[in-house]
Amino acid sequence: MSTKIHIGFLIYPGVTQLDATGPAQILSLVPGAKIHMIWKELEPVSTDAGFSINPTDDFATCPDLDVICVPGGTGQRPMMADEEFLAFLTRQGTGARYVTSVCSGSLLLGAAGLLKGYKSACHWAYRDLLPMFGAEPVAERIVRDRNRITGGGVTAGIDFGLTLAAELAGEETAKQIQLFVEYDPAPPFDVGSPERAGPQLTESVRSMLAAAG
Amino acid sequence: MSTKIHIGFLIYPGVTQLDATGPAQILSLVPGAKIHMIWKELEPVSTDAGFSINPTDDFATCPDLDVICVPGGTGQRPMMADEEFLAFLTRQGTGARYVTSVCSGSLLLGAAGLLKGYKSACHWAYRDLLPMFGAEPVAERIVRDRNRITGGGVTAGIDFGLTLAAELAGEETAKQIQLFVEYDPAPPFDVGSPERAGPQLTESVRSMLAAAG
Repeated sequence: MSTKIHIGFLIYPGVTQLDATGPAQILSLVPGAKIHMIWKELEPVSTDAGFSINPTDDFATCPDLDVICVPGGTGQRPMMADEEFLAFLTRQGTGARYVTSVCSGSLLLGAAGLLKGYKSACHWAYRDLLPMFGAEPVAERIVRDRNRITGGGVTAGIDFGLTLAAELAGEETAKQIQLFVEYDPAPPFDVGSPERAGPQLTESVRSMLAAAG
Repeated sequence: MSTKIHIGFLIYPGVTQLDATGPAQILSLVPGAKIHMIWKELEPVSTDAGFSINPTDDFATCPDLDVICVPGGTGQRPMMADEEFLAFLTRQGTGARYVTSVCSGSLLLGAAGLLKGYKSACHWAYRDLLPMFGAEPVAERIVRDRNRITGGGVTAGIDFGLTLAAELAGEETAKQIQLFVEYDPAPPFDVGSPERAGPQLTESVRSMLAAAG
């Protein structure tokens, strides 16, 4: 009898790697967890940060997942129309205990039909696209609606990972993990959200994101 | 004329991947930055989180680095006595503009002779080993002493990355990056340091770490 908790990150070329690697670090410390990095094939997957990650599973060999998590990234846009990708996501998302995302990954959950009628988080710059998929955008770092747990932009994946760790293994274990990874954040500036950053900085980042495609 | 800023992470089997991937995400957004993931050879490097990362450079082909960063991890111990690894680190560390580490990576900087007479951070559970290498442990999230910038455990790499981004590209750019990655942390529990976690939780994590080797 397997007591493994299969936690899969659906990656793709141009993924924002910290969206996946942040929660993967946290969740790999959950007792019994097995982390899967999943792509169509086992070839290296390029990330947005100058290096590539090797998938552990392809679409054919990936087991049924207990948790599926979809990260965001500049490569997310082509995946919105990739039938093979969306079909895998829909199939796994329909059976998984938790259907989750970080950053603009929630747009991919939406495109796979998995957020219809659900509240969802997203990176602040893309949050207003969620209603296209019948989802209700919520400006929070972690949004939970039934078995959907979605995180905001990039670094929200760490808070998300700890929230999910508590769900999977209890608060005490999640607290151990938090201390293990010394998560006592001290951002050097107080500009982590548009509300705190103000309109000028927010506009400059919107321009950067638009330029990045 | 190249205006590239070469930022290298020296990885190894059993590296705690978030130690490297956190700052790599931040620093990849610095204008002109080129991220290098470096190991002895170009074969995939296993991480502690169930997947492997592909090096971009081996020891022979890696250019002179502007920044060298050494992450920690369970695989750090064998590297403490790996002459080839330490020789590469000493060579690059002697020439780099910034010599840096995250988590128990500072013990590797120490073993390479790069922290003698310097103040340094480290993961809280291993901080008391720093004096073995002539370094002075400091219980802070980011410690700077001349051109050495060292971070505390795992997630400190994100704060470290933003601190270094400000150093390399100015505060305004670092603030843009912080907003880009939505770094507005909201840990679900307040137990990210031994002081906040209290003695019982701290002892349980010390036992976990001891069991992990």
